[in-house]
Amino acid sequence: MIKVITSKNNDKIKYVVSLKDNKNRKKEGKFIGEGRKSLELALHAGLVQEVYTYDTLLIDENIPQYLVNEEVMKKLSSSVNPEGIVFVANVPSFKKDKYNKILFLDSINDPGNLGTLTRTALAFGYDAVVTSSDSVSVYNEKALAACKGANYLIPVFQDDLENYKDSYQIIVSTLKEESIDVEEVKLEEKYVLVLGNEAHGVSKKSEELADIFVKIPIENINSLNVAVAGGILMYSFH
Amino acid sequence: MIKVITSKNNDKIKYVVSLKDNKNRKKEGKFIGEGRKSLELALHAGLVQEVYTYDTLLIDENIPQYLVNEEVMKKLSSSVNPEGIVFVANVPSFKKDKYNKILFLDSINDPGNLGTLTRTALAFGYDAVVTSSDSVSVYNEKALAACKGANYLIPVFQDDLENYKDSYQIIVSTLKEESIDVEEVKLEEKYVLVLGNEAHGVSKKSEELADIFVKIPIENINSLNVAVAGGILMYSFH
Repeated sequence: MIKVITSKNNDKIKYVVSLKDNKNRKKEGKFIGEGRKSLELALHAGLVQEVYTYDTLLIDENIPQYLVNEEVMKKLSSSVNPEGIVFVANVPSFKKDKYNKILFLDSINDPGNLGTLTRTALAFGYDAVVTSSDSVSVYNEKALAACKGANYLIPVFQDDLENYKDSYQIIVSTLKEESIDVEEVKLEEKYVLVLGNEAHGVSKKSEELADIFVKIPIENINSLNVAVAGGILMYSFH
Repeated sequence: MIKVITSKNNDKIKYVVSLKDNKNRKKEGKFIGEGRKSLELALHAGLVQEVYTYDTLLIDENIPQYLVNEEVMKKLSSSVNPEGIVFVANVPSFKKDKYNKILFLDSINDPGNLGTLTRTALAFGYDAVVTSSDSVSVYNEKALAACKGANYLIPVFQDDLENYKDSYQIIVSTLKEESIDVEEVKLEEKYVLVLGNEAHGVSKKSEELADIFVKIPIENINSLNVAVAGGILMYSFH
């Protein structure tokens, strides 16, 4: 089905725009994707509900396509220079029992960090990214941009760390006195690597659940950016 | 000297605001710093020309302090929630001959990446960060924010990579067929690690100057965020 929409006050357009708000994304179980590469990945994952574009795309004809003008596209897009492809997709659901290597993000605020960490977890063969309930959503537009499509290739979902305590080794990244150097960590087969908030570090709850505290040896300053620290830890554990 | 400024149309305020533009920063050799921690570091480095604040600060009385209201502070500050301390500082100059470990940033566009990489270079004991002429300035407000003060503790300046060819081993991060894994690099005493643009990688000129190409072994996707890749390389070389 292909239709033309010329007004940015069209109800469909208003609906898509409403999904820029995390509350609405949660209520509807949908998010807004953008760009050709992301669309390909989302189509492959069977998540795409409908597409908004300048020109008809050669995709499954059961997926509605809405042809829009620049004004409407600017309303839909989160990009300064829209590529001309925006789509609505279903938030996927994931089974929670068959992962060995998990990255847990504890109160990550910055969507760029969350997206970059998701992309890095995929690159180092992690099986899932789990986010605390107070972390930014991976379906935030900036998080999706930083993911570079990684969110379609690795499960990302919200859960409590305590659900992993019984079956996983919990490794918490923090600069405590008792923290051991990253090279000295003896990994178990199933583990969760926990990274904390940009300003405040990991939560007290996460610290209580930890089996090991790990640190990266640095000099001159007292912390690294969380995405850099996560990258170094995931690389080292690889 | 302590003076009160109440109007955002004051000439001094207009001058500070003009330094938000990189061209004016270059012409004047000044930049805008922000926040108490940065001010302390900039004072220690002897770079501070004048301070704009809500309340008088206990600093060297030869440095002029201008007391401003919220409206003026909002005009000066780059922060959504201004801490209430903005200062004008002199861009420092650096001697270019006594460094062993240099990070070279080749056409880095994103100020957050540039700042994060500077912070990481400091944490891993690099001696200087050199930026190509087409990289974003470290004195960009977002770059400074991501530096978290690192710019006051490690020399950061613009230069051409070819000036290092004779005395340094040039190590270029890129995913070429001939790239060797990061663990296999045999570092010389003096080396330059080169990281390239977020979208296009390192420039052709940098590739031509390379002694070694290095890569980080990853799976599933074909690149890491440049700040994450830089972090892993600097950690590995540490």
